[in-house]
Amino acid sequence: MAGLGGKSIILRLEMNLQETTFGKVASRIGELGGDIVAIDVIQAGREVSVRDVTVTVGDSLQIERITEAMRNLQGVKLINVSDRTFLLHLGGKIETRPKTPIQNRDDLSRVYTPDVARVCLAIKDEPRKAFTLTIKRNTVAVVSDGSAVLGLGNIGPEAAMPVMEGKAMLFKQFADVDAFPICLNTQDTDEIVRTVKAIAPAFGGINLEDISSPRCFEIEERLRRELDIPVFHDDQHGTAVVLFAGLLNALRLVGKPLSQVRAVVCGIGAAGVACSKILLAGGIGELIGVDREGILHRGRRYANEMWNWYAAHTNPRGVTGGLREAVEGADVFIGLSAGGLLKREHVAAMADRPIVFAMANPTPEIAPEEIEDLAAVIATGRSDYPNQINNVLCFPGIFRAALDCRSSQITEEMKLAASRAIASTVSDGELNEHYIIPSVFHSQVVARIREEVVAAAISSGVARRIPREFR
Amino acid sequence: MAGLGGKSIILRLEMNLQETTFGKVASRIGELGGDIVAIDVIQAGREVSVRDVTVTVGDSLQIERITEAMRNLQGVKLINVSDRTFLLHLGGKIETRPKTPIQNRDDLSRVYTPDVARVCLAIKDEPRKAFTLTIKRNTVAVVSDGSAVLGLGNIGPEAAMPVMEGKAMLFKQFADVDAFPICLNTQDTDEIVRTVKAIAPAFGGINLEDISSPRCFEIEERLRRELDIPVFHDDQHGTAVVLFAGLLNALRLVGKPLSQVRAVVCGIGAAGVACSKILLAGGIGELIGVDREGILHRGRRYANEMWNWYAAHTNPRGVTGGLREAVEGADVFIGLSAGGLLKREHVAAMADRPIVFAMANPTPEIAPEEIEDLAAVIATGRSDYPNQINNVLCFPGIFRAALDCRSSQITEEMKLAASRAIASTVSDGELNEHYIIPSVFHSQVVARIREEVVAAAISSGVARRIPREFR
Repeated sequence: MAGLGGKSIILRLEMNLQETTFGKVASRIGELGGDIVAIDVIQAGREVSVRDVTVTVGDSLQIERITEAMRNLQGVKLINVSDRTFLLHLGGKIETRPKTPIQNRDDLSRVYTPDVARVCLAIKDEPRKAFTLTIKRNTVAVVSDGSAVLGLGNIGPEAAMPVMEGKAMLFKQFADVDAFPICLNTQDTDEIVRTVKAIAPAFGGINLEDISSPRCFEIEERLRRELDIPVFHDDQHGTAVVLFAGLLNALRLVGKPLSQVRAVVCGIGAAGVACSKILLAGGIGELIGVDREGILHRGRRYANEMWNWYAAHTNPRGVTGGLREAVEGADVFIGLSAGGLLKREHVAAMADRPIVFAMANPTPEIAPEEIEDLAAVIATGRSDYPNQINNVLCFPGIFRAALDCRSSQITEEMKLAASRAIASTVSDGELNEHYIIPSVFHSQVVARIREEVVAAAISSGVARRIPREFR
Repeated sequence: MAGLGGKSIILRLEMNLQETTFGKVASRIGELGGDIVAIDVIQAGREVSVRDVTVTVGDSLQIERITEAMRNLQGVKLINVSDRTFLLHLGGKIETRPKTPIQNRDDLSRVYTPDVARVCLAIKDEPRKAFTLTIKRNTVAVVSDGSAVLGLGNIGPEAAMPVMEGKAMLFKQFADVDAFPICLNTQDTDEIVRTVKAIAPAFGGINLEDISSPRCFEIEERLRRELDIPVFHDDQHGTAVVLFAGLLNALRLVGKPLSQVRAVVCGIGAAGVACSKILLAGGIGELIGVDREGILHRGRRYANEMWNWYAAHTNPRGVTGGLREAVEGADVFIGLSAGGLLKREHVAAMADRPIVFAMANPTPEIAPEEIEDLAAVIATGRSDYPNQINNVLCFPGIFRAALDCRSSQITEEMKLAASRAIASTVSDGELNEHYIIPSVFHSQVVARIREEVVAAAISSGVARRIPREFR
């Protein structure tokens, strides 16, 4: 993972100028494959100079080699090694700021006592005014218990914070949504539900994040039922929305109508269930689920309750067996399981012009280069291959829409609308097998999602406010 | 309360220029006592012009008169009336922002996946790194259940939000502390304790706010015991710290040593108890408490447990009776009760050069003008009299200090240090009966508090980090 994009480190070096020169230091770094991209002089002197040297390297091994070399270089003292990622995280990545400065007593009396009392009373008299007169209008809680963070597993709430802070950054940067990370010091379902309900008054929406399956289903379900603001488990629905957007465009490319498509979902966990649900809601022709115990079918009773539900709602032909039997003649493979599970012969057994979404992280179910000649379209969860299925395409826009129309929930219609909106940002002229899904930096994604999702919220009857341009 | 500082309203007026002129509108507003301070043209046309006219008025009655007049004026349509305080609150008063922008995939991979994983793992391996690598380093939760907000009483969590947002603004503006409002949808003690503990991982401190007595005592006590970050109920301790600062300077002015001073505290609720505790910790000569049932003394058993504790720790002479008996010969009166309770004859019965802190809000225990000739120093909670005892002087600086030295709690020593620091910002040359306490805008307050309180935290053994300048 570390090597994906190249890394920067900052070496703080104290040089004894009688014994060495910066030229010697620089050439040693260069010999070991480091590229010096910045130098900041921290302390300048005739005899001793302290400098921060920013070096870009290809992998962690090079970092070790370079730091080791600096430790052994005559006349050089390695004071500190900071890596840019860590430096970016110092003190956290977000801040909470006043929207207007408090410069004098007059300002103070308006935003605080005594005048704030009139605003408080206005909300007390008419509680829905909280949506206009407080941050509830634009603020989402990013809630995690740290039980299933990235591919790292159960690392706990403190260690999950950098991910949730990163998410809050993305919310603001991409969709001007204020988001605040809430990492919970409990992994008990009841306790999580109680806590989120208790803190809900400040928020206009709840983004659940990195909560392990199957607890995530019950937590989301109960919160959806008991709160009047949208609750959205991004690992499930964000993935599903973006996958479905990619699938719509992949099918557009190969010219197969969704209603006649046979798809296999491999890995029936939280994301797998959500992806399957959106496929069903979108009107897929046939769907078969596969997990550790093989193809899920009605002929068996599973310990995992979700699998029983799944078997009852999919696999109409009652196919049994394993992944090999599942993919036989399938148009689409959707993997949310583990690296390397899909083999070349599986893809060869699929229907004509097969579509493969190999989304396991960090290693896909099959490496794209292995099946380039067989598959019509290949997508992964990774940024170093084309067609990255990345949640960042969904959550900022879908919450922007939900907040703007003060939606009480995020319905299936809204999710489908978000998928269609994302898909629509790729024009017919742009569409090709390496470009079925836009970049997360595509400037139109959030605006398109907002437009489609607000319209869907209004027609589903969950919008409590109609933004001006929709009237 | 509304009339204290003058108010601004913004009138959105549509004028039919065939039937009227702006001059006519302006003169009508002027006749009714309004002062036009700004005009923004929203829509300009030959026949119709829409303008936002900002008008400053003295009181609410004038607002009504002016809006009524605009409704009746020929050729004018009053589209909307906004009051500046409400406008300032639109969409809330704070925002959560990235500290650095995410401009490209490289940035994205550092602040989010995949590179963020390394930061997560570093915290997992060494949990105290949460204090350096996440917002925990600089972030405080402002927690309220909305049960005792300002003088408004139990208005609930949504209606309490504007106060908590205001507080978050002040934290950032005055002390660069990031603070986030958490308004709880529960008033159950156990539930509040559980919720705050559950959300604590993101925070470096907890500022409890506007929680009614006696629940606030137990909530604070339990959280202090069970969390390893500072928990500070500002209504109690913030008030106490600033009162004590004011008292130190008042005594400096009248030349009485604290150890020989007799003080009466009237109103033994949350703030009264906290003020009494800091007086005892600071070494006051004698302390007597008075509440609805008269002077608290050891000869009685009270239903309120806190009063039994209070009676056991104060009133060494066993004085009995009411306020009249309590103030007899006292040097200091400290009111945290209700408007008008203190009479001129009470003050006349006090010792020579009496000091009166009449802090009931919005109406003091006695109006300062009634006792100007009797009292040596008078302080209130109001900004329209000299010597305002305002919590804003304390909480930003004391949390700045606690965060900077990663204190596990805010001890009595730290509170006393904060009082001394605040008092010290008033020099001997500046000190007079109208200036015993600095303005909340005094530029040195936070820095002084930080210096003294960090030193106190280090010497109390609760600092887990020694800032460079204290090494």
